[in-house]
Amino acid sequence: MRVLAFLDGTLADPDQAHIRVDDLGLLRGDGIFETVLVTNGVPRELGPHLDRLARSAAMLDLPAPDREAWERTVQLVIDNWPRGEEMALKLVYTRGIEGHPAATPTSFALGMEIDDKIKAARRDGVAVVTLDRGFDADLAQRAPWLLLGAKSLSYAVNMAALREAARRGASDVIFTTPDGTVLEGPTSNVVVARGRTLYTPPPSLGILPGTTQGDVFRAAERAGWDTEVTTLKVDELGTGDALMLASSVRKLTRVHTLDGERLPDSTKVHAELAEIYESQYE
Amino acid sequence: MRVLAFLDGTLADPDQAHIRVDDLGLLRGDGIFETVLVTNGVPRELGPHLDRLARSAAMLDLPAPDREAWERTVQLVIDNWPRGEEMALKLVYTRGIEGHPAATPTSFALGMEIDDKIKAARRDGVAVVTLDRGFDADLAQRAPWLLLGAKSLSYAVNMAALREAARRGASDVIFTTPDGTVLEGPTSNVVVARGRTLYTPPPSLGILPGTTQGDVFRAAERAGWDTEVTTLKVDELGTGDALMLASSVRKLTRVHTLDGERLPDSTKVHAELAEIYESQYE
Repeated sequence: MRVLAFLDGTLADPDQAHIRVDDLGLLRGDGIFETVLVTNGVPRELGPHLDRLARSAAMLDLPAPDREAWERTVQLVIDNWPRGEEMALKLVYTRGIEGHPAATPTSFALGMEIDDKIKAARRDGVAVVTLDRGFDADLAQRAPWLLLGAKSLSYAVNMAALREAARRGASDVIFTTPDGTVLEGPTSNVVVARGRTLYTPPPSLGILPGTTQGDVFRAAERAGWDTEVTTLKVDELGTGDALMLASSVRKLTRVHTLDGERLPDSTKVHAELAEIYESQYE
Repeated sequence: MRVLAFLDGTLADPDQAHIRVDDLGLLRGDGIFETVLVTNGVPRELGPHLDRLARSAAMLDLPAPDREAWERTVQLVIDNWPRGEEMALKLVYTRGIEGHPAATPTSFALGMEIDDKIKAARRDGVAVVTLDRGFDADLAQRAPWLLLGAKSLSYAVNMAALREAARRGASDVIFTTPDGTVLEGPTSNVVVARGRTLYTPPPSLGILPGTTQGDVFRAAERAGWDTEVTTLKVDELGTGDALMLASSVRKLTRVHTLDGERLPDSTKVHAELAEIYESQYE
């Protein structure tokens, strides 16, 4: 099941074509997106998602998104989705039609079901491989035109990395710099638990500031955990009490295997943190 | 004017919507493309373009493109284009619909007019800035999942680099590695003329093998020039007799200004090479 709404407030049939072939989102991956988890009719962390959409838009020199229109569009999709069914809600915002001097951005929200692979990852955890992302830790500051930290539609590399993981018998990836600094997953942020502290790498490395990671950290702080946003090296990933990936749709996912090595059992720590996170939405 | 044909041999109205919102070409920039120049009804270097499309498809684990179907589709667009009018012909090939287990690639050819900006660049040359692309010269060999050298639809960074150039008062870019090795333009290859030799950087650096650059080199060789595919450093760019960008639609474009410095006049060398290239198609 899919539910589609455009930013002008119209619902549309997702099985029909709505996009022109010369939309720059398609021809150039020139646009941005967000994916929001909706449970029991409530979009999780919609504010941070719309904040990040606005930041991505600024990085790509796109017109500032109309926040209220996006909020209304999100609600429209939710109102047309079966209550009680989880939904992954994609917000997509492209530069519009190629070569039109006053191109209007293409803007829509698409609600989709959570597929079984994601439900299995939430329940069973995942095997992860580390892959070199090829850029240094200081590049984002130095070269803003590389759009590091913007959530653009140009995700072909992220998708290729997931296929490389599959070739290596894993289902997800943690990107690193060439010198072994931990970055992020293709569609997630990295979280390490050690003692009563949670760690995640800083956005200054050119990674996306995580909405779910931020949400988990705030919930954990309220439950008495310490949190640190700090540089991690790849050899620290397996030495904590739990290695996890945070993403809107997969929530906090436990990594049970890293580069082919089974990690010590982190079921208990993960369950505690997952419960802390989830209890906010009950 | 635009002419649109799908790979199944149907013509379609480019002003109508033909693409679903959940096409992975749009949602993930997950697909590939080529742009072919057509003059007097003849597609230039169609063979090398289709070779490169097949290479890009292999790098992205897409099904091998059906070469004969693409050739027929190219001809169909040409047959519906006013004879004598130049055309930029985009071939686009995406992974198809998200979440469909047996997704069929989305495949179309879109003919477009050559805009005035491009005609001006051909005639007057361009000002270029060098920008750090952030990756080292050996990365492509080491990390194939980064898709360096594949012509994917994920071009948001290339477009952002062109906007950065505009902010600096230029209209095009030459990417370099952090240590000053010359890579390519966002939509072109770099060609330097020195004496009677043409130079261009090697594809092993993780850049696209240029169809127009290759065509220019072969034509120049027949006219008595030497050619070398070799590593160039950024400080060599301005010291030759001509610095040029080669791309299908802009052909061989003269760079008159590099990082704000006017280069010595290269009009004569450029005119000779442009004539050598062009005479193949007369």
